Amino acid sequence: MRDLLEAVAAGEVSPAEAQAELAGYATSGAGRFDATRESRSGVPEAILGDGKTPAEVAALAETAVETTGRAIVTRIEAPAVTAVRETVADTAPAATLRWDERARWLVATTPSFERPSLDATVGVVTAGTSDAVPAGEAAMIVGEMGAAVTRVDDVGVASMARTIDAVDRLRDQDVLIVAAGREGALPTVVAGLVDVPVIGLPVSTGYGHGGNGEAALSGMLQSCTALSVVNVDAGFTAGVQAGLIARQIDATR
Amino acid sequence: MRDLLEAVAAGEVSPAEAQAELAGYATSGAGRFDATRESRSGVPEAILGDGKTPAEVAALAETAVETTGRAIVTRIEAPAVTAVRETVADTAPAATLRWDERARWLVATTPSFERPSLDATVGVVTAGTSDAVPAGEAAMIVGEMGAAVTRVDDVGVASMARTIDAVDRLRDQDVLIVAAGREGALPTVVAGLVDVPVIGLPVSTGYGHGGNGEAALSGMLQSCTALSVVNVDAGFTAGVQAGLIARQIDATR
Amino acid sequence: MRDLLEAVAAGEVSPAEAQAELAGYATSGAGRFDATRESRSGVPEAILGDGKTPAEVAALAETAVETTGRAIVTRIEAPAVTAVRETVADTAPAATLRWDERARWLVATTPSFERPSLDATVGVVTAGTSDAVPAGEAAMIVGEMGAAVTRVDDVGVASMARTIDAVDRLRDQDVLIVAAGREGALPTVVAGLVDVPVIGLPVSTGYGHGGNGEAALSGMLQSCTALSVVNVDAGFTAGVQAGLIARQIDATR
Amino acid sequence: MRDLLEAVAAGEVSPAEAQAELAGYATSGAGRFDATRESRSGVPEAILGDGKTPAEVAALAETAVETTGRAIVTRIEAPAVTAVRETVADTAPAATLRWDERARWLVATTPSFERPSLDATVGVVTAGTSDAVPAGEAAMIVGEMGAAVTRVDDVGVASMARTIDAVDRLRDQDVLIVAAGREGALPTVVAGLVDVPVIGLPVSTGYGHGGNGEAALSGMLQSCTALSVVNVDAGFTAGVQAGLIARQIDATR
Amino acid sequence: MRDLLEAVAAGEVSPAEAQAELAGYATSGAGRFDATRESRSGVPEAILGDGKTPAEVAALAETAVETTGRAIVTRIEAPAVTAVRETVADTAPAATLRWDERARWLVATTPSFERPSLDATVGVVTAGTSDAVPAGEAAMIVGEMGAAVTRVDDVGVASMARTIDAVDRLRDQDVLIVAAGREGALPTVVAGLVDVPVIGLPVSTGYGHGGNGEAALSGMLQSCTALSVVNVDAGFTAGVQAGLIARQIDATR
Amino acid sequence: MRDLLEAVAAGEVSPAEAQAELAGYATSGAGRFDATRESRSGVPEAILGDGKTPAEVAALAETAVETTGRAIVTRIEAPAVTAVRETVADTAPAATLRWDERARWLVATTPSFERPSLDATVGVVTAGTSDAVPAGEAAMIVGEMGAAVTRVDDVGVASMARTIDAVDRLRDQDVLIVAAGREGALPTVVAGLVDVPVIGLPVSTGYGHGGNGEAALSGMLQSCTALSVVNVDAGFTAGVQAGLIARQIDATR
Amino acid sequence: MRDLLEAVAAGEVSPAEAQAELAGYATSGAGRFDATRESRSGVPEAILGDGKTPAEVAALAETAVETTGRAIVTRIEAPAVTAVRETVADTAPAATLRWDERARWLVATTPSFERPSLDATVGVVTAGTSDAVPAGEAAMIVGEMGAAVTRVDDVGVASMARTIDAVDRLRDQDVLIVAAGREGALPTVVAGLVDVPVIGLPVSTGYGHGGNGEAALSGMLQSCTALSVVNVDAGFTAGVQAGLIARQIDATR
Amino acid sequence: MRDLLEAVAAGEVSPAEAQAELAGYATSGAGRFDATRESRSGVPEAILGDGKTPAEVAALAETAVETTGRAIVTRIEAPAVTAVRETVADTAPAATLRWDERARWLVATTPSFERPSLDATVGVVTAGTSDAVPAGEAAMIVGEMGAAVTRVDDVGVASMARTIDAVDRLRDQDVLIVAAGREGALPTVVAGLVDVPVIGLPVSTGYGHGGNGEAALSGMLQSCTALSVVNVDAGFTAGVQAGLIARQIDATR
Repeated sequence: MRDLLEAVAAGEVSPAEAQAELAGYATSGAGRFDATRESRSGVPEAILGDGKTPAEVAALAETAVETTGRAIVTRIEAPAVTAVRETVADTAPAATLRWDERARWLVATTPSFERPSLDATVGVVTAGTSDAVPAGEAAMIVGEMGAAVTRVDDVGVASMARTIDAVDRLRDQDVLIVAAGREGALPTVVAGLVDVPVIGLPVSTGYGHGGNGEAALSGMLQSCTALSVVNVDAGFTAGVQAGLIARQIDATR
Repeated sequence: MRDLLEAVAAGEVSPAEAQAELAGYATSGAGRFDATRESRSGVPEAILGDGKTPAEVAALAETAVETTGRAIVTRIEAPAVTAVRETVADTAPAATLRWDERARWLVATTPSFERPSLDATVGVVTAGTSDAVPAGEAAMIVGEMGAAVTRVDDVGVASMARTIDAVDRLRDQDVLIVAAGREGALPTVVAGLVDVPVIGLPVSTGYGHGGNGEAALSGMLQSCTALSVVNVDAGFTAGVQAGLIARQIDATR
Repeated sequence: MRDLLEAVAAGEVSPAEAQAELAGYATSGAGRFDATRESRSGVPEAILGDGKTPAEVAALAETAVETTGRAIVTRIEAPAVTAVRETVADTAPAATLRWDERARWLVATTPSFERPSLDATVGVVTAGTSDAVPAGEAAMIVGEMGAAVTRVDDVGVASMARTIDAVDRLRDQDVLIVAAGREGALPTVVAGLVDVPVIGLPVSTGYGHGGNGEAALSGMLQSCTALSVVNVDAGFTAGVQAGLIARQIDATR
Repeated sequence: MRDLLEAVAAGEVSPAEAQAELAGYATSGAGRFDATRESRSGVPEAILGDGKTPAEVAALAETAVETTGRAIVTRIEAPAVTAVRETVADTAPAATLRWDERARWLVATTPSFERPSLDATVGVVTAGTSDAVPAGEAAMIVGEMGAAVTRVDDVGVASMARTIDAVDRLRDQDVLIVAAGREGALPTVVAGLVDVPVIGLPVSTGYGHGGNGEAALSGMLQSCTALSVVNVDAGFTAGVQAGLIARQIDATR
Repeated sequence: MRDLLEAVAAGEVSPAEAQAELAGYATSGAGRFDATRESRSGVPEAILGDGKTPAEVAALAETAVETTGRAIVTRIEAPAVTAVRETVADTAPAATLRWDERARWLVATTPSFERPSLDATVGVVTAGTSDAVPAGEAAMIVGEMGAAVTRVDDVGVASMARTIDAVDRLRDQDVLIVAAGREGALPTVVAGLVDVPVIGLPVSTGYGHGGNGEAALSGMLQSCTALSVVNVDAGFTAGVQAGLIARQIDATR
Repeated sequence: MRDLLEAVAAGEVSPAEAQAELAGYATSGAGRFDATRESRSGVPEAILGDGKTPAEVAALAETAVETTGRAIVTRIEAPAVTAVRETVADTAPAATLRWDERARWLVATTPSFERPSLDATVGVVTAGTSDAVPAGEAAMIVGEMGAAVTRVDDVGVASMARTIDAVDRLRDQDVLIVAAGREGALPTVVAGLVDVPVIGLPVSTGYGHGGNGEAALSGMLQSCTALSVVNVDAGFTAGVQAGLIARQIDATR
Repeated sequence: MRDLLEAVAAGEVSPAEAQAELAGYATSGAGRFDATRESRSGVPEAILGDGKTPAEVAALAETAVETTGRAIVTRIEAPAVTAVRETVADTAPAATLRWDERARWLVATTPSFERPSLDATVGVVTAGTSDAVPAGEAAMIVGEMGAAVTRVDDVGVASMARTIDAVDRLRDQDVLIVAAGREGALPTVVAGLVDVPVIGLPVSTGYGHGGNGEAALSGMLQSCTALSVVNVDAGFTAGVQAGLIARQIDATR
Repeated sequence: MRDLLEAVAAGEVSPAEAQAELAGYATSGAGRFDATRESRSGVPEAILGDGKTPAEVAALAETAVETTGRAIVTRIEAPAVTAVRETVADTAPAATLRWDERARWLVATTPSFERPSLDATVGVVTAGTSDAVPAGEAAMIVGEMGAAVTRVDDVGVASMARTIDAVDRLRDQDVLIVAAGREGALPTVVAGLVDVPVIGLPVSTGYGHGGNGEAALSGMLQSCTALSVVNVDAGFTAGVQAGLIARQIDATR
């Protein structure tokens, strides 16, 4: 950021351009990072690892740590984790890294970073083990936005007894994210049993007709109980939406 | 049929051709009616009303009554019902007609017709009132094939209590046909609660993405509990499949 | 309901069956009405007018008024409105009816009915006049669930100035429902400008490839800003989801 | 399981929760295994190998052997077979393993395990060699459910003589599973020649328009002879459905 | 045509433009009619009735009769038939009209018109009565191109005996057009039984998934016996293709 | 084959079964090979290499050479070529092998094999170099069926001059196979310029919407000039259809 | 507009709001009309008749005439034409109306309205008569934006001679809009023959697979010659795009 | 080329064929290169690297350099770059090569080659870093056609401020190519803010429903502001279309 201001001082960049730059985004060689996104829209900026080289991910993560004290990366693979680790070790040696290899996310934070803390709880519910990846991504971003997370796993409708056993815990949450693949019936069943808002998260399991999460998505859109829905495997989006609702609930507590 | 035999006698039709003709089908001006289908494949021949004129339906129904003692018509509209009624009144005045206006089927039988009687019960289950048409068509053909029918209506998953209340009745059936539209979750839920074979029958309700029964169909194909499935609104096919299973069960009792 | 209890007294219905019946649903000839749905899942039961005869709609509306003091009907046409009006005039002459001909909903309430009142505001935003029907349906059910409604109309992205003019009003809401047809870009743009949860409501406008709301739906599911989404034209579902969020916000105020 | 009971004793888990746990499912680190699924719904619980690590497959197989005396794994690859073999060798050294490399299933059983034995025969029919994988999966689960299996291979409709040669054998079965890829005409042809229930099993062969089994699936759903259908390559589901029908037939013998 | 030549004489139209005009097409107010199409590509120009007003159809038919001695109209409705009849009565009172109301085609010819006569026979085969419309259109154009037509009707695969009875007649044709709706298996079965080229003609019957002829089309494209295919209901195209093959066969006789 | 006859002699196989076996097909461990397909339906049996192991391909090729004097393999990869070469070297050392690496086909023939010879010529036309694979497959099978082949390459519509230059050569053929990918316009253009039957062969080029040959296929099905069509990349099918037409033409010469 | 200014004067509307209002849009009861759209984006605001009542169309047309001196309505039906005629007769009696019944557009202008005049020519090309509606809509808006229009009709690829005859006229245009339905090959062919930018306009003709313009659209997107494309039947969009290009060309002349 | 002329001299090739050859295309073993495409249609011939071997790419590039002084290759991988480099070093050692590894294009030019120079500027706009590949391809071909290129990157609608900051720069261009993936809203937003023609370039980002650029494509086709569109990732086509427009603008300056 200093570089930009010095460029202004040197007349290389006009004040108008600098203002635009400072109003929202920092530029590294690997793209722009929207440093003020959180203050503007309540959503922490995250870096999507898919389709970027390890070096690009590391450069964006460095900018994120530098400008906001935290880097959130989703869909990250091991080589990019190594690259981020090395880069951050250089430029922010006091930062701590958390990495969930299965759910494929990484969060780096500086010691001075203060995560928001919301007085609201989000339930993250899965039908089976194959829902773990998007559900894990959702739970991570809910936590980074400051809400408490309750995990309720393996309550798929094939064994309805499990689902019904969990009803009291489900009713205690402020918002529910319900992940399910194949026919995706779980969010429909849950929404008929509770009185809290349910966000359906379709998961890309299943083969043949309606596979890759398409049957789950269309089933949730057609649900005879009221749901809102995100795209297939869009755990990040489901988590952000739940986090925004948690912010509204917290604001009034 | 006499015409054919006389044509053989007259040398106009070869005995070989006559044999083929008599082995399976009677011809009227409106098409062929497969009079021996039931003995060959266990399935009563039925006349699909859709896309035929009232006169064509009536001609085929007349041939059916004449050759097998019974006419089954599906997807029939009021004008065709009238045409059949008049035709049958002429040629088989002792025949009785049953017509289900809502489920759109008609069955005409002569007094001498003996419906098969199977020692097996088929449950026909619906999620809501809009499933009544294909479910009614299924129940009719199950009955015509000789099995007992138990209707279990309005047990949709939006109110899971209704579904669970019905479990004992569902477990008492030999086979279940479960109809559902929109997200089509009911057969999945039922199949997880019972130990009898379940045939999923998707219904063409719902609008938007996955509407017209497509979400229900793909959800049933993707079900995490084991189902077999028929096409959207194919109540006749579901009923025949349940009837064939009932025949196998009966044969062993 | 009295009939049921008398049937129990007469031994025609077991207490167990009666309990199930009373726990959640009343039965009329036209289907079941889930009278306790609101207490169980926070969602008022509504009657979908599409695909029902005027007589069926009226019978269900009568049951609804009788058991809950209110009938909500969506996608209702004029003949069914007349039928409801006549039936309600008979059985609940003091009831008042509101009918929105354009948005095709009807609400009947008895004088003693107390609508819930939530301390939360839902913004209902449209891109153009053709979004009025689902947006109106959404606004109605939000109101019936007790939240305040703010309408922000005609802020489509073709004239970005209109959208930006509305930002302050949009930021003042607790939740936003944003309706848009054709390419459906409005919810994406709005979600980038505010910090409240946005529910995207795709509308079935547009012809050719991606028409009937399919482009709007897939665009909202792919949005580069975080949204949750409902099916095409599913104003009722969007409204219920916003209402459930409003209930959570209210509970904490 | 002992851990759970001790946790109850220690007051860490309530009896109610323990009851639920014991009523239906055992938990390992790799997910839950539904140990009572067979008694509840007549379907042996199986482990889907696809998308699980060898270690996860092995852990679930171990739990399965421990709680039910048998582990069934479908879509298993060689490394997972090795992992299961090693794990089972440790914890149940007397167990025997059967592995079909081509059809990709593995079954492990302890000496004390008693496979059910049903007095019913299921025919598993293929159109060509590429149908072997799902047909083999179907035949395995039919056998594990206790029915006899008759294989009728390579009777594709391109050489109708082969199909007609097989008719007598086909008519002798109690139920038929008919697998076919490409245009999937075989189940339609077979169902016209026999009087037993036919379950169509579409296979993911074929390229271009309608490839990957989509033409076969839609053709079977549209069949002019009565079939029920499972999803593309869903040999396990077809086998379970046939097994459930066989159970009904056996129960009456 | 005289008008054009006079316009050339008058200098209003250049000889070059006139040459282009005369090389291939005549212009009426209702569009251009390609009068030399038959000599150029062997295909008689036909007028598609769908989407044209009766007056437009009549004007084009008049041009056709005037320039080639014959008008062929497909997908024609009764009002357009009347319009053609009146127009032709005026301008070519000696012309004869043939109209097939069911298959919706009309052919008008002047007494001097000489239909080509080919020494080749085309079999037109149907699976059921609902295939009659496109099959009739195909048979008409085959006849207009000069080949002999053999109709083989109602040989659907649900009763394989009928199909097999017809094999000898099928093998006697030079080319076969085989029409079928729903799952469209008939052309596949026929092509396995004969050694003549088969053109599959999918018909828009069937509802639900794969309905409107889509399953038939994709099944024919995936056929395990060699077929070429035309679009759903494209009887005219199938007939022209068979006619062109018949021309080649005739040329060598 | 001797094994079978000896099994009959030994009473292990009934004469009836043997008759069926000999009537059409020889069995190796890798599946059945339909040895009399050519005499029955005019189409030489071919082995599809895709999805088979080299050993399976070699075993089927051996059976083919043994029973018919020729093996035709399509979509074959180098390892399978090696396997066939070795197997044939053992069992039929005098056989000759031709392999087209680019078009991925292999033909092995014994010295005594007599390829049919038809007095007819098939033109195989391509729009660009990426059409070479299916066009090459088509040309091979046309040749094996005995017709002469004329290749006309690189006449894509982007440079219409090339197409028009080729018209005379195109008009000289008895049948045309026209391959094209992307928008697939070439067969439409060619069919407007010639008076011989055209078979459209869509090729799986192109990315994005309509890619993988789907736009080419649907364009050919919608062609405003009369074509018949085969599936995407189905060069074998196109070639067989052209070969069958050539047989009809030859029969009359 | 006066009302707004008076509301400002009265303190009922803030100057800021008024500024926004005046910057771009006028509000009638039937929706907003974007009066400054033309000055901002170069595109005249048009009223889409589809889905609006005659009264709504008339109210918007009145606002358009009042604020910009011109009303453009597309997809208008006769009753709405009458309503506009009456409304305009009242409020702007000197205005003139042009209505193209076939292409379904209406333009009303006041005597003082000055249509822009651009020194650029746009060719509007059609393949057949069924392309007339979207082509007419395109030609109208090109004209209203001020460019000259050259119509080149009936040059479909079925008769390539017609297309080639037209090449010189096509090469003389500054931009071409080429409309085509069914397989949509014409824009591909034209773009290979000229050196001016071509905008492909797919038309919703054709039935069966790829019908309703889908094959034409995907073929144009896949074209082997460079095109840009608009949606099916989107004549207005094609015309505006050509008009914007004409403006750029004119600006430099 | 000399070879051809000598073949003519030798009587091996007719003058007519030679004329055709010279009128438009040069032939190498790897296919034809359309050397006069640029003079005929204004579009430089380019070589698509995808699906060609390095040797084929190099042979075509050699022909291109030889006949036109320039070779343009798109979608080229490193091995093909090496092959081209070596071949060109042999046959045109003075040529210079430019290679953009990220956007995957290569341009080789001889010293004597004169790139056209147009007095027009094309803006190439991206929403994010993942749009770089097709945008880079578009910018390259615009440059090779002679227009100036302005890059405006990272102005995605998630941060509307960035977009609005760029408006003045966008309005200064003669034509805009706007690339965007996921929901593809950027071209719609930009076209509402400027008065120059906008070409939408959908990019194959995004997963789940509407992924791979399908949502972006359908959204741009449905845009409520006027756009023309190219296929997903078709940067080359977008660039050529912009270049053709630039040529028209230049011609009038």
